[in-house]
Amino acid sequence: MTISADKATPLSGSPRIDRTDAMGSISAMAEAHNNWGRWGEDDVLGTLNFIDAAKRLEAAALVRTGEIFSLSQPFDTNGPQKGWRRRTNPVHTMTDTGVDAERGNQGFPHGFGGADDVIAMPLQCSTQWDGLGHIFDRGKAWNGRAAGDVVTSEGDLVTGIETAAARIATRGVLLDVGRGLAEETGRDDGELPDGFAITVDHLERTMERQGPSSTVRRGDIVIIRTGQYTRARREGWGEYAGGAAPGLSFGTAPWLHASEIAGIATDTWGFEVRPNEFDAAFQPLHQIAIPNLGLFLGEMWDPDALAESCAGDGRYDFLLIAAPLPITGAVGSPVNPIALR
Amino acid sequence: MTISADKATPLSGSPRIDRTDAMGSISAMAEAHNNWGRWGEDDVLGTLNFIDAAKRLEAAALVRTGEIFSLSQPFDTNGPQKGWRRRTNPVHTMTDTGVDAERGNQGFPHGFGGADDVIAMPLQCSTQWDGLGHIFDRGKAWNGRAAGDVVTSEGDLVTGIETAAARIATRGVLLDVGRGLAEETGRDDGELPDGFAITVDHLERTMERQGPSSTVRRGDIVIIRTGQYTRARREGWGEYAGGAAPGLSFGTAPWLHASEIAGIATDTWGFEVRPNEFDAAFQPLHQIAIPNLGLFLGEMWDPDALAESCAGDGRYDFLLIAAPLPITGAVGSPVNPIALR
Amino acid sequence: MTISADKATPLSGSPRIDRTDAMGSISAMAEAHNNWGRWGEDDVLGTLNFIDAAKRLEAAALVRTGEIFSLSQPFDTNGPQKGWRRRTNPVHTMTDTGVDAERGNQGFPHGFGGADDVIAMPLQCSTQWDGLGHIFDRGKAWNGRAAGDVVTSEGDLVTGIETAAARIATRGVLLDVGRGLAEETGRDDGELPDGFAITVDHLERTMERQGPSSTVRRGDIVIIRTGQYTRARREGWGEYAGGAAPGLSFGTAPWLHASEIAGIATDTWGFEVRPNEFDAAFQPLHQIAIPNLGLFLGEMWDPDALAESCAGDGRYDFLLIAAPLPITGAVGSPVNPIALR
Amino acid sequence: MTISADKATPLSGSPRIDRTDAMGSISAMAEAHNNWGRWGEDDVLGTLNFIDAAKRLEAAALVRTGEIFSLSQPFDTNGPQKGWRRRTNPVHTMTDTGVDAERGNQGFPHGFGGADDVIAMPLQCSTQWDGLGHIFDRGKAWNGRAAGDVVTSEGDLVTGIETAAARIATRGVLLDVGRGLAEETGRDDGELPDGFAITVDHLERTMERQGPSSTVRRGDIVIIRTGQYTRARREGWGEYAGGAAPGLSFGTAPWLHASEIAGIATDTWGFEVRPNEFDAAFQPLHQIAIPNLGLFLGEMWDPDALAESCAGDGRYDFLLIAAPLPITGAVGSPVNPIALR
Repeated sequence: MTISADKATPLSGSPRIDRTDAMGSISAMAEAHNNWGRWGEDDVLGTLNFIDAAKRLEAAALVRTGEIFSLSQPFDTNGPQKGWRRRTNPVHTMTDTGVDAERGNQGFPHGFGGADDVIAMPLQCSTQWDGLGHIFDRGKAWNGRAAGDVVTSEGDLVTGIETAAARIATRGVLLDVGRGLAEETGRDDGELPDGFAITVDHLERTMERQGPSSTVRRGDIVIIRTGQYTRARREGWGEYAGGAAPGLSFGTAPWLHASEIAGIATDTWGFEVRPNEFDAAFQPLHQIAIPNLGLFLGEMWDPDALAESCAGDGRYDFLLIAAPLPITGAVGSPVNPIALR
Repeated sequence: MTISADKATPLSGSPRIDRTDAMGSISAMAEAHNNWGRWGEDDVLGTLNFIDAAKRLEAAALVRTGEIFSLSQPFDTNGPQKGWRRRTNPVHTMTDTGVDAERGNQGFPHGFGGADDVIAMPLQCSTQWDGLGHIFDRGKAWNGRAAGDVVTSEGDLVTGIETAAARIATRGVLLDVGRGLAEETGRDDGELPDGFAITVDHLERTMERQGPSSTVRRGDIVIIRTGQYTRARREGWGEYAGGAAPGLSFGTAPWLHASEIAGIATDTWGFEVRPNEFDAAFQPLHQIAIPNLGLFLGEMWDPDALAESCAGDGRYDFLLIAAPLPITGAVGSPVNPIALR
Repeated sequence: MTISADKATPLSGSPRIDRTDAMGSISAMAEAHNNWGRWGEDDVLGTLNFIDAAKRLEAAALVRTGEIFSLSQPFDTNGPQKGWRRRTNPVHTMTDTGVDAERGNQGFPHGFGGADDVIAMPLQCSTQWDGLGHIFDRGKAWNGRAAGDVVTSEGDLVTGIETAAARIATRGVLLDVGRGLAEETGRDDGELPDGFAITVDHLERTMERQGPSSTVRRGDIVIIRTGQYTRARREGWGEYAGGAAPGLSFGTAPWLHASEIAGIATDTWGFEVRPNEFDAAFQPLHQIAIPNLGLFLGEMWDPDALAESCAGDGRYDFLLIAAPLPITGAVGSPVNPIALR
Repeated sequence: MTISADKATPLSGSPRIDRTDAMGSISAMAEAHNNWGRWGEDDVLGTLNFIDAAKRLEAAALVRTGEIFSLSQPFDTNGPQKGWRRRTNPVHTMTDTGVDAERGNQGFPHGFGGADDVIAMPLQCSTQWDGLGHIFDRGKAWNGRAAGDVVTSEGDLVTGIETAAARIATRGVLLDVGRGLAEETGRDDGELPDGFAITVDHLERTMERQGPSSTVRRGDIVIIRTGQYTRARREGWGEYAGGAAPGLSFGTAPWLHASEIAGIATDTWGFEVRPNEFDAAFQPLHQIAIPNLGLFLGEMWDPDALAESCAGDGRYDFLLIAAPLPITGAVGSPVNPIALR
């Protein structure tokens, strides 16, 4: 398979990308890989439709040691955001405190005291799900709807994240690509370098290396560990929010489609490789994945503790519960994904 | 057992409450029912310590049909908050929309468009966990710490909700008290009237009526359905936020302690009965439960769909995952609790 | 003059309004009263162009006693907003407090302590200027621009309130219509009843009653006191935000145009009479005033102390300084208008 | 005069500062220069008491050309704040837009359309007044009150900025120190270098150079132009928020006291020179000025256009109106200061 008109042989089983033809490549990919209408014209769930009761039962049966992992990064003022498109780090402030309570300032009877707090934050400031209204392809939202019919200033009137409130519990599979590609990257620290494009071949080699518990199946949520977050924790955020990063190659779109996964998440800001693989592009894989495939993307997840545990016993699948907050009309949601194994 | 100096016989096995002696009753209760030091002087988790790997395994084994329920109310501008202590409903606004994308206003290449959003909200505006720094008893926070050492204007420096990020997955038990007390309340609509104090006796009768799957055990999270939220959905919010409500009696404190539950949640604004049971009081059961017992309280949960399902097959226990967002220093967190059964 | 096709004689010199023909009336009025192009096609200031250096000199000369008045209502959590179109009251929270400073919690050296705070608020929550990008008429913004070219999700890209940062100092004239119409309203408390439509005739009679210092001239800012805010302070906010209110009649549009005033402000939520004067309408006078006339409207001002002083000595004009905060791209701004007399 | 025990001769008429003795120097200065009780024990206005009706009349008489200047910096997402103590740049978002209006998304009748917006911002994010509750000296707020009695989590209960709503209109005097000290600094670009401490001597030489219109008198508000903001606009914000900056020397405290000014403002983030003049210090001049003198400090003002005009005709005084927003309980306020000359 090739993307764009370029006839070159795919490297590592992945299609060759014509850097100069973003528009042609993206439109061809969107035409070839598209789930519009697959679940009816009223559908608002996209690939979450792959999760059913049987899938949840299969997933619950993966809990064997009782270990629990939070895959959430902190929601903290000292986060990576630098203001791009008004994305800031969360601002958490107290409306009542223990200091006030202790001093008797609060006016409650019988020694009662309280602390209360508020938060102001972009919904994409830390660990998050992209909702289906987050990205558009040439004016179209998921399932072929006009973008302006879906997300107005009042929010996502159709595919708001609240529609996914009771959906996201399924089998999770960790693909620790960072640990798996020491040979290719020449790094043995379990981290992919920034700018590294993860191809289908890389995904397949990782599954092979990790063994059968890594086999990705319909309805799974795949968690890709690149190691970039590990690096950010060690070295500081730097350009984590939008700068160069390892991530999925545009060429993985066919795999994202064919695998029938319910969602995929990474430990990076933007899921796909940055800089992007076209000369003039902005997140082209998003443009396929969200509006055309209806695929749920998770970003800024923290798979490190889970990865350590998986590496310990060679079991890479688990019960994953990652329910968004049902914020009416939101195009994404902060989430604390929980892995039980 | 009696609360305060009053010697009257407890009604329905619950202690008699002396309405005029809030201070004496609360201090006596706090002395009699206290977990300070139980898990060491550095403990920040309180009753979440009752959840261990074995408990999570037990809970995962309860998933039998693959049904999934979100126990979250909406996070919506049209919520119940009216400004008490500056608690508002969430304000969700868009920083980019589909309308802009469709019109070509966004300046992205190759037909890419995006929508983004922000939220400003009190952490207690909708479905939530109270953190251990949320309430103080006479200047003391959980485990006996000085309130002013724990929660300053910078947030909860000790028991911030982020400490509970990877903890809350356990057996959940629904006690549908609303449905269970038709005889006592004279209502057959499954709703307790506002002001109804739920006693230990009521809890026990509900468990008995529901059958053995309702037996509460160490490490469980108990979800109390009063039916008030059902009523609010039907009739409008009214005084849901802080007004009269059914809820736990102050006299349940010994049971909350002895049962060794990890947490308890209700479908009401404030967990305990309102008006409170002392002449001059504010949330006295909170004052025992949070700072003295280290008990996690959930408020404004929506158990209705789950309750319907439990009533259908008589099975009232399930796997409950209710992980807070790890907001650094928060004294509570919005949450979308998920029940898998 | 008549509005719509109705031929009836104007009551009190004001045009008769055909309640059933909002669309026809508004479009006819917009055609007859329109300043598009008057100050060039690039204009972003509208009627603020009427204020020049000579006008400011004239205004400064009105300061004779040295009295000062703030015409701002409080910016307070206990305000009138109830959530209409997500307009809330301001939420002001502390990020550092004196309680913390006193306790030594802040970590500053040599006894230094500080308090700091943040605010989240709609720009129209209290005393405010409407910017020229606030209202559109059939898809057009001020000066005939396409609304979608002017105000996107990024804000007002053309007529943002920052363009008016150094403009609003001029002669102010108070028209205390509430005090002036005791005869017409049968109230001698200085308050117009809710629903009272102020016509040109009412304005003229008020000017006449108040004497020559009230004569409105080019470049003035007119402040209308209806007395509704006086009532709200006495009786509580009630439906102040959007409910029934006294205010300008739609029929004043020609006067607003011909008078060549720079701006006009009221002590009400919405400037014009509510309910509006057409059967199915929403703020029709706004639709003429802002996009067609380029007129600056002030709302929720507090003229009461100033009115008392003016009534005392019969002088109704003064130096008015009411500079908006230059919030980039805002379609309005909170303001503390100052009258010096 | 000397500060601390150091006996060295003051340089340029300013006291010599003992870098090693912050605590001793500050406490001695606070004892020597203190206005507590000067306006009664209930006073909440501090040096604003120096402004009376006669002063306002004097100021209004300074308006001679009708020129108007806004001294406000933009309130813009691309501002200087970097998160120090949770101070962010303003986040301005739209709740309704022209794009939506144009598309007919809003549901209003007769072609009406609207745009609305909200802001979330620290009150000190851009051009601002420090309120009297902003800074404490060893646990004491202005007028000797206990800091914890004044500013709790509910805000400033005593000296909230709303108390200054109708006060700040007076004679302003621009001291363009940047332009005045070319000889001392060796720079002829009108900008003081970062770290430059402005002494009383520098102020006096500037007044002398500028001529008699610069003479500072009781009740004035002095505006100091250092040129740092000019530099920031040219070169980018860099470390404008809290980094090295020109500013007032700690040694100016006696002058700030003796001059009986009502307020003083600079074009810098923090008013006083940074790094501060003691080895271990944080804003020591604030510690004298606000809690001990009751002096209103303005920060992040933009005097550049005004300075240009003053330099043009040699007139450095003007009518200054700089009324804060009356945000209940705020310890500061954004402001758009207006100079009329």
